Amino acid sequence: MALDGTGKRQLRTRAALVARARHLTARKGLTGFTIQELCDQVGVSRRTFFNYFPTKESAVLGVENGLDSALVDDFLAARAVHPEARRPLVDDLVEVAIGHFEAMSPTASDLADFVGSMQREPKLIAAMIDSGRSEQERFIARLAESQGDADLLPIRVAIVTFEALVRLSIDTYLHGADVVPFADILRERVRAARELFAPLPTKRLVPSP
Amino acid sequence: MALDGTGKRQLRTRAALVARARHLTARKGLTGFTIQELCDQVGVSRRTFFNYFPTKESAVLGVENGLDSALVDDFLAARAVHPEARRPLVDDLVEVAIGHFEAMSPTASDLADFVGSMQREPKLIAAMIDSGRSEQERFIARLAESQGDADLLPIRVAIVTFEALVRLSIDTYLHGADVVPFADILRERVRAARELFAPLPTKRLVPSP
Repeated sequence: MALDGTGKRQLRTRAALVARARHLTARKGLTGFTIQELCDQVGVSRRTFFNYFPTKESAVLGVENGLDSALVDDFLAARAVHPEARRPLVDDLVEVAIGHFEAMSPTASDLADFVGSMQREPKLIAAMIDSGRSEQERFIARLAESQGDADLLPIRVAIVTFEALVRLSIDTYLHGADVVPFADILRERVRAARELFAPLPTKRLVPSP
Repeated sequence: MALDGTGKRQLRTRAALVARARHLTARKGLTGFTIQELCDQVGVSRRTFFNYFPTKESAVLGVENGLDSALVDDFLAARAVHPEARRPLVDDLVEVAIGHFEAMSPTASDLADFVGSMQREPKLIAAMIDSGRSEQERFIARLAESQGDADLLPIRVAIVTFEALVRLSIDTYLHGADVVPFADILRERVRAARELFAPLPTKRLVPSP
């Protein structure tokens, strides 16, 4: 599930537009800058901007089309096989998350700009919650369709718990004392989750020799 | 880990103050009502209010002292025994979450008031994020201390994944089509997480008879 050059460039361009849109919103408010200024600062044309986002607001929200990446397409294709031929879902999710993270390379100041943009334009908060939720629902629906699953519950549980592990890993990556690759941080946390949710050990009926 | 009458009443009073403070903030803003008005509407004295919260803002945030309940004390006491005498951590967390939920009985309009209060007073957003994070850290530290654990990572992973399951369960409870007790909803989602993170089945070396 490696991204080719075009796929990586698209994710990076998209991430750069979102980061800059949030930065400008945090400093100047939504009406304090134009799409043209945003494009100039990122170094893309207006036409490129509209390939990714329909409006300035949607760039700040940064969620529309976020799932339409080659990475997600490959992930869904890998799930669309006979259940016994699939890897455990968590393992495939780990690969997608690492690929996205590495292409987008978020920084601590990106995170501060995100919070700052919501504080400057509080009307975006409800939109952010709504669009985050509908993007999650769309991902759940696409994954269920790929896997041929009628029951959404196991997939929904997988996505929300996995997202929690990704958020925790990003936080450690951005604010942790040590310099550790994101991939290692995430894998370590997934291992811890496996231990947490491990089934109870069955009691031995006879003492071991 | 059952709550006695006093413990339940305290959780309910606290929840009522938070819900009303958010409702008033969403409608009138932080300066649009007094602590006295809030107390009158909930039916408690100012003195009772200050037993729970130091300021009006902290009632809206609803996080200070949220962990100082008899329920959490009992939970921590149950973890402060020899590791082999403990139940799986997730099972104990399930009991605490159900106890809290049943004492606090959140409604869909409580959730709408929460979002509304943040939109009306955006300066509270950063405070909400900070206080949520520090409450979580305090809970993690207390649990680690009770268990005598030096490594916080497994506990941190437990808390963030479990919180994700609780949020998902509250959402289903408040917005789901069917009327199902919260306890059943949460337990079903924890079961799904166990399956998700289950270790790989080991391959049989010989066919079963």
